[in-house]
Amino acid sequence: MRRILPHSKQLLTEMISEGDIVVDATMGNGNDTFFLAQAVGSSGKVYAFDIQQQALDATKERLGKLYSRTELILDSHARIKQYVPDGISAAVFNLGFLPNQNDHAVITKPDTTVQALKAALQLLKPGGVITVAVYDGHPGGPEERDAVLEFVQQLNAKLFQVVRYEVVNQQNHPPFLLIIEKTNRRAR
Amino acid sequence: MRRILPHSKQLLTEMISEGDIVVDATMGNGNDTFFLAQAVGSSGKVYAFDIQQQALDATKERLGKLYSRTELILDSHARIKQYVPDGISAAVFNLGFLPNQNDHAVITKPDTTVQALKAALQLLKPGGVITVAVYDGHPGGPEERDAVLEFVQQLNAKLFQVVRYEVVNQQNHPPFLLIIEKTNRRAR
Repeated sequence: MRRILPHSKQLLTEMISEGDIVVDATMGNGNDTFFLAQAVGSSGKVYAFDIQQQALDATKERLGKLYSRTELILDSHARIKQYVPDGISAAVFNLGFLPNQNDHAVITKPDTTVQALKAALQLLKPGGVITVAVYDGHPGGPEERDAVLEFVQQLNAKLFQVVRYEVVNQQNHPPFLLIIEKTNRRAR
Repeated sequence: MRRILPHSKQLLTEMISEGDIVVDATMGNGNDTFFLAQAVGSSGKVYAFDIQQQALDATKERLGKLYSRTELILDSHARIKQYVPDGISAAVFNLGFLPNQNDHAVITKPDTTVQALKAALQLLKPGGVITVAVYDGHPGGPEERDAVLEFVQQLNAKLFQVVRYEVVNQQNHPPFLLIIEKTNRRAR
């Protein structure tokens, strides 16, 4: 069965080659950072962002020997261009809740999410891909979903293809996946 | 770039093995029938449906030597169970306009489309897949789209996974793709 997240991983595995530079825009517990660090090999680099120190600590622990392939950055993903060089081949966004030791919910927000997407698109090399898992079942989720959809729908179809991939016969607001692929063509 | 129809073909190529029985529910000009006839090999069989004799004529012409792998049926796809044995591994629906020599538009219709989908799901073997390309830019299109979506959204998630795959930054009502996969699990 093709679930959303396995589909995302399969796609990324196809798109990422050894030596690539990639971004985990929402580090959280480090699962995606770990996956990406495997994909880029020993000559590649993963830049991973989170605004919580505990995410960096958990991810460093999770990475083990793969830590040397990563830069774990304690800052908003909206400021990605301050840290990441041009020419990335992939970026991964997993929106919604960030893992938190306290019970206070920390969520990604429409403004910074869209800013981060814009910046990541500018860094993306032709043929590169951004995946965005969108959850809208939590308070604030629908607003972020709509802001992200509005942003991606107006992307120039000559420069980007945006695909929405969604399981439609599940209850309880399952996430859907946006796949943004940068074409190899230049704008006229 | 991953367009809708190439994605559909790639998926079907992965799912169909030599010797399989498959269905082209909307024969039209025979492009999908031809593709499916290649996929099932010399020991497989493609059952293809259309309500217009001209579709059968065009498809027979298109198939050439592959014609022997097919049964071209001049009847509504709603009556699929009258012709097709149980245990199909795939069925392809390409909704909307049927090619027509005259300028009178012939389109697939909500009632018979949903009937045909229901019947195809009953014939589908575990692990099998149905793809549905849904066009909604023509008169009658939105009604058919909504009927199909309503039908697939209520399918038991234990028995089927339904994925919607859609390019979201294109104008002019591009089609979207529904992928219905029958699980290997039995209902409780």
